[in-house]
Amino acid sequence: MDPSIIEYLTDRQCSRQWKGFLGAMADEFSNQLDVDALRELMQRLGARFAAQFELAPCSTLDELQFAMSKVWVSLDWGWVMLDEQPDHIRIVHNCAPLRAAFGQDALAWTPAFLEGVYQRWFLQQGAADALAVSQSSAPDDSGCIEYRLAR
Amino acid sequence: MDPSIIEYLTDRQCSRQWKGFLGAMADEFSNQLDVDALRELMQRLGARFAAQFELAPCSTLDELQFAMSKVWVSLDWGWVMLDEQPDHIRIVHNCAPLRAAFGQDALAWTPAFLEGVYQRWFLQQGAADALAVSQSSAPDDSGCIEYRLAR
Amino acid sequence: MDPSIIEYLTDRQCSRQWKGFLGAMADEFSNQLDVDALRELMQRLGARFAAQFELAPCSTLDELQFAMSKVWVSLDWGWVMLDEQPDHIRIVHNCAPLRAAFGQDALAWTPAFLEGVYQRWFLQQGAADALAVSQSSAPDDSGCIEYRLAR
Amino acid sequence: MDPSIIEYLTDRQCSRQWKGFLGAMADEFSNQLDVDALRELMQRLGARFAAQFELAPCSTLDELQFAMSKVWVSLDWGWVMLDEQPDHIRIVHNCAPLRAAFGQDALAWTPAFLEGVYQRWFLQQGAADALAVSQSSAPDDSGCIEYRLAR
Repeated sequence: MDPSIIEYLTDRQCSRQWKGFLGAMADEFSNQLDVDALRELMQRLGARFAAQFELAPCSTLDELQFAMSKVWVSLDWGWVMLDEQPDHIRIVHNCAPLRAAFGQDALAWTPAFLEGVYQRWFLQQGAADALAVSQSSAPDDSGCIEYRLAR
Repeated sequence: MDPSIIEYLTDRQCSRQWKGFLGAMADEFSNQLDVDALRELMQRLGARFAAQFELAPCSTLDELQFAMSKVWVSLDWGWVMLDEQPDHIRIVHNCAPLRAAFGQDALAWTPAFLEGVYQRWFLQQGAADALAVSQSSAPDDSGCIEYRLAR
Repeated sequence: MDPSIIEYLTDRQCSRQWKGFLGAMADEFSNQLDVDALRELMQRLGARFAAQFELAPCSTLDELQFAMSKVWVSLDWGWVMLDEQPDHIRIVHNCAPLRAAFGQDALAWTPAFLEGVYQRWFLQQGAADALAVSQSSAPDDSGCIEYRLAR
Repeated sequence: MDPSIIEYLTDRQCSRQWKGFLGAMADEFSNQLDVDALRELMQRLGARFAAQFELAPCSTLDELQFAMSKVWVSLDWGWVMLDEQPDHIRIVHNCAPLRAAFGQDALAWTPAFLEGVYQRWFLQQGAADALAVSQSSAPDDSGCIEYRLAR
């Protein structure tokens, strides 16, 4: 697919109403805080966000993936795939609108928002406190990012 | 008009993609900062926002009102009316999506975003540094807010 | 509320992506067909639309109102209120985006789309064939329209 | 890029508010009319659409491409590239939301809408009546379609 087409499609991932505001926010914050502080801020925002969209208790990973994706799709935030690995749960979030909203440079810290969301959602489902969600890949061109829930 | 209809219409003023995120942001920030600091932050965001949407030089207040409103309407942020008063310029911003985005409680500080935007836009047009934009009314139900550019 | 504000809010009820197309469609169709034929066409479109969004069986009018409104709200088509009257069920559809989409002149026939939708949804729920949905009020300024399900 | 990602991105090309309505319309019309009649209908809609968005006179193909794309981008309808060939002008419309709106099966006739739009826009710019716009490629996965303006 032509790069200009991918750019158009991924750019449209963010509502035009908030692109200017969120871009200004990303610039202001990266001016004021270092990456660690920015990631912590985004995690806290993610936890608050997840609290607004509490999920019903799910008994399988498939059910949970469906419940999470229902929230994401209804908000135009892409969708998620969960799968069990020997020592962790792999979380693949597709088509997150983070680049379109906050810009390329902010991708060093904006994905921590989703760490915060998934952390809270797994806690709500009864995951042990010792388990933490951490990002395990950089976002690709379409906004796909991998995370792990692990000890 | 029935209150539930006004509520529906004003609620839809904010894109559903960012409502959850912006609501979480408003909660987090009001937890961390007092109203003065929040207003200063919003003014800085407004200034950065205005810098992204620089206006062509305008020679009349009508032209300026049109140039500003063109930006707002294209982003679904309402529109603005400017008029000259003996000792100030009155700025009426209609249908700002601030309540729908950040919630009722945050209306004590979110309108400072528009102070920042108008301040920068008037400076870009050559207004004297001594002139400052300040909010002169609380937002009404439909998101209409008044400001003044004055010494 | 100021008329220009109501106009702005109701105008934004239709996504800008389709306003031009739907306006062209309304002009073309009203050029080709009389009002009766236009209403029949809209009813058929409504029936097809409802078939895409089949509702789970509901055991009370409240449940049904909730199931219908869930579809409407998720699509930014307003919401519905149902209530039982001695000889009919009153259907009040609030904030339908018909004026914003197809224009003022087309309001003589576009509300028949919702006749078609409700007719099909009530049939799906097991309403008797002899019951028909018909429009009982003209749309008001905010797109509120009344219908009746009756013999 | 993963097919499910391309599908998500292209599916989101159509506003969710009208997808159900437009899909119902496509089904109803293909039931009533053959492909030639459907294409003629779409051309007429395109001509009416173009009349709503009249372009300022342009003196070069680049200017015209820019004026047309400005309309398309503001409506989330993709963008257009024009280039001069020995015996025709090549019109490449990228990211048209036709598949997302009307479905895969309707792609046999929905692109005629853009024939109608470009035909009218070229006439407005003073193109000779003898020149006609016709589709010269099937839409690809991202909604890219080629047309020609030729004798």
